[in-house]
Amino acid sequence: MKPESRYQEYKTLMGRIADLDFANAVLGWDQQVYMPKNGSEGRGRQMATLSTFSHELFTSGKLEGILRDLAEEQNLDDSQRFNVQRTLKDVLRKKKYSEAFVEEMALTTSKAFGAWHEARTKRDFKVFEPLLAKIVELKRQEAEFLGYEEHPYNALVEDYEPGLRVSRIDEVFDQVKRELFPFTREIAARFKPDTSFLAKTFPKEKQWEFSKRIIEKMGYDFESGRADDAPHPFCTTFAPGDVRITIRSAENEFNMMLFAAVHEAGHALYELGLPQREQYGLPLGSALSMAFHESQSRFWENSIGRSLPFWKGQYGTLQKLFPENLAGVSLADFYRGVNAVEPSFIRVEADELTYHAHIYIRYLIEKALMSREIEVKDIPSFWNDRYQEYLGIRPSHDGEGCLQDVHWSYGSFGYFPTYSFGSFYAAQLHAAMKRDLPDFDGKVERGEFSAILKWLREKVHVHGKRYSSDELLTRVTGEPLNGNHFMSGMRVKYGALG
Amino acid sequence: MKPESRYQEYKTLMGRIADLDFANAVLGWDQQVYMPKNGSEGRGRQMATLSTFSHELFTSGKLEGILRDLAEEQNLDDSQRFNVQRTLKDVLRKKKYSEAFVEEMALTTSKAFGAWHEARTKRDFKVFEPLLAKIVELKRQEAEFLGYEEHPYNALVEDYEPGLRVSRIDEVFDQVKRELFPFTREIAARFKPDTSFLAKTFPKEKQWEFSKRIIEKMGYDFESGRADDAPHPFCTTFAPGDVRITIRSAENEFNMMLFAAVHEAGHALYELGLPQREQYGLPLGSALSMAFHESQSRFWENSIGRSLPFWKGQYGTLQKLFPENLAGVSLADFYRGVNAVEPSFIRVEADELTYHAHIYIRYLIEKALMSREIEVKDIPSFWNDRYQEYLGIRPSHDGEGCLQDVHWSYGSFGYFPTYSFGSFYAAQLHAAMKRDLPDFDGKVERGEFSAILKWLREKVHVHGKRYSSDELLTRVTGEPLNGNHFMSGMRVKYGALG
Repeated sequence: MKPESRYQEYKTLMGRIADLDFANAVLGWDQQVYMPKNGSEGRGRQMATLSTFSHELFTSGKLEGILRDLAEEQNLDDSQRFNVQRTLKDVLRKKKYSEAFVEEMALTTSKAFGAWHEARTKRDFKVFEPLLAKIVELKRQEAEFLGYEEHPYNALVEDYEPGLRVSRIDEVFDQVKRELFPFTREIAARFKPDTSFLAKTFPKEKQWEFSKRIIEKMGYDFESGRADDAPHPFCTTFAPGDVRITIRSAENEFNMMLFAAVHEAGHALYELGLPQREQYGLPLGSALSMAFHESQSRFWENSIGRSLPFWKGQYGTLQKLFPENLAGVSLADFYRGVNAVEPSFIRVEADELTYHAHIYIRYLIEKALMSREIEVKDIPSFWNDRYQEYLGIRPSHDGEGCLQDVHWSYGSFGYFPTYSFGSFYAAQLHAAMKRDLPDFDGKVERGEFSAILKWLREKVHVHGKRYSSDELLTRVTGEPLNGNHFMSGMRVKYGALG
Repeated sequence: MKPESRYQEYKTLMGRIADLDFANAVLGWDQQVYMPKNGSEGRGRQMATLSTFSHELFTSGKLEGILRDLAEEQNLDDSQRFNVQRTLKDVLRKKKYSEAFVEEMALTTSKAFGAWHEARTKRDFKVFEPLLAKIVELKRQEAEFLGYEEHPYNALVEDYEPGLRVSRIDEVFDQVKRELFPFTREIAARFKPDTSFLAKTFPKEKQWEFSKRIIEKMGYDFESGRADDAPHPFCTTFAPGDVRITIRSAENEFNMMLFAAVHEAGHALYELGLPQREQYGLPLGSALSMAFHESQSRFWENSIGRSLPFWKGQYGTLQKLFPENLAGVSLADFYRGVNAVEPSFIRVEADELTYHAHIYIRYLIEKALMSREIEVKDIPSFWNDRYQEYLGIRPSHDGEGCLQDVHWSYGSFGYFPTYSFGSFYAAQLHAAMKRDLPDFDGKVERGEFSAILKWLREKVHVHGKRYSSDELLTRVTGEPLNGNHFMSGMRVKYGALG
């Protein structure tokens, strides 16, 4: 068979797998957004069936056979060769999962979600503990059959940021501990802006009017997406021209909708910038990693959305929308208010500085669980002691402590570090963009985001999975991840603020 | 292998097929209701992939092998035996479709939908004609490979009302022509109620408030369903506890939302009454036929929703909701207005009497196409002549004539007769129910629909596909379809009205 037609077979098979996965994404979205209560049992089994078909196709001898033929083939172009090699690597990794393991994990996590939810509501870790212990035991097994060097945690991180290792995470967090934590304490101690106006009543429709205006200016196109209300904000892709976000709001918390909408729109712009049409379901049409995905959302949320130039340009409009709340609040005071720094218990409500302490604590726990330095029963006290140590506050119950995040109930271990890495990538991209794009702050102030989006599309989005994060950062910024960009950005910003 | 475990294998396989089909239903619903414009290309391929997987599983040697073993098995109970025999019959029918045929039909209809839409907009049959001719040619082939007795149309009707034949359809429509058409002309000539108040402004939210109140009274539960806006009203099932409807409205056409909502809720109550949990994806958990489905929606829409007892009970509430429109309109005048009879061009807007002329004309065309008495190019003149003959009006263009319905662009031939049969079944069920349930009209007037729903659930819904329509009618009403029930119902109703 000609290499072209063999490659076509590979593309067809991967396309069908992508069809199943995207269909499953629609089911998952509907489950969060519109599904009536009594639909959940059927939906659960339908999503499991689609996952099983997708997994079976991906790990079938058929795909592997095609890939092994193509791996020998000399007449592929670079992009084709990359797709083949990367897919073969992923297939070999997925094949290590036995059917029994996958089933047990699915069964355990489906029970665990309910238990977690109940535990959080009752503020009682004991309700979640047995199932979490089971999950941790399964994750330990998973690391063993996947294989790793140095630390079992490395096997799990690989799913979210390929190539990232505990040694490197430790290195990056050493700088965080050495520089960011003392700086955060210093800022929190002296910078105490008024935030009371953010808790006035902001009607939801008008919040959305403003948020929609902003994400459209960013370049999010409502012919290729939409926004629906959901209990948690997220971004999900159904097709190359259908990438949706969800939003939530509280009338007395201005911060809740806008920054989350900008964050999710940042994820969506990345997905919409990937060459998904030409590379449908293939590595070159897919996002580099969860960490890089987070760099795109954090860039728009923090580097743009919480910046002074942005508010210089947009605050007048916001004031006009909410005169009763903001007429007496100056631009400077508003900007200070949305950048307040204060240690708090809940990660998703944390500011740009304290956020990384939340992540670091979760990382320490996950790593210690995987190396058996602690067991699940030790989590509450370990968690609370670390909050005391790094944030100077101690949760009064596990609901505002170790039960706040859903991730572990899904079996997601190794994900949390990508939140910090994404932020640090974003800062490094931000610094490079300021060098590349003349009058960057002026553009942001005037709401001219097209040059910024173009830069991200050409430098980042278009490459899909072609490079590792450090390779791509090196191509785009001249060096691999360097935490100094984040630190110096924060020093400049908060130096001016506080 | 024990018969129990072999039957379990059958159930598991059918469950997975149902999972794929229900997932596809979610994708189809989203496509109509929420999908952004640029999502359509990806959605098309994803739905095609799910259909292909479902078809492959259903016609796989594996399912047939299990079924053939089970067909020999003595130790199944009646329900199990029924499911096995019916599924085997369906598998053997579906196996007659070659992959090439299915692909060509899918390709042709996917193009035809766009062409139909363009043709209707431009009021130009020529735009649709070539693709419709291709579809008709494919349907003629389909009838040949499926096989039939007497008339090729019989092969197609089988999909929508198993066992129904042209000879029987002709018999039923002979009575329609003999009795209903003259009666309709007589009523239309002498009964000319005022309908102007139905075209006043009825704000959408308040229309929905009323419609929702009614369908909840009928027993539609928003924990097992929901209603969304869509260009066309429909009902769709995603799971035993998730059956949704769509609604549409026009502020100046009161009739549009309420009666469609009641109609779709009627479909939904049937789906929710099927034993879908215990018989997930199996014949006994599925609706008897499209015609019987229509009997459920027509029953609620016409026998209940357009009846005098219903409006005796509900009109006060409606008047209070819309005092500016209805304060001066008496119950009697309102009831007359919503039951006005007038020949018109558009089927979906037709009244209870003229409706069947629309259906009969479509039936004549489909039958003549299948027997090659006419060709696609003849449709417009054939259509217009028949409207002249049976309704006394002649379309001024094909947009209000033969281009109005989407069905043929999907390749649905043989479906239309079920709309009339559904109405006639409904009238027969209505008559039986009035005998069975004491103070039926009083119950309707008081909005006590629970006894009615219970009757439908116990007599009709719970049986799934166990009986044919005529068998079920005989069990429930004492005789197979008898068109006199519809005719005498209409004579009583319109005798009192006009």
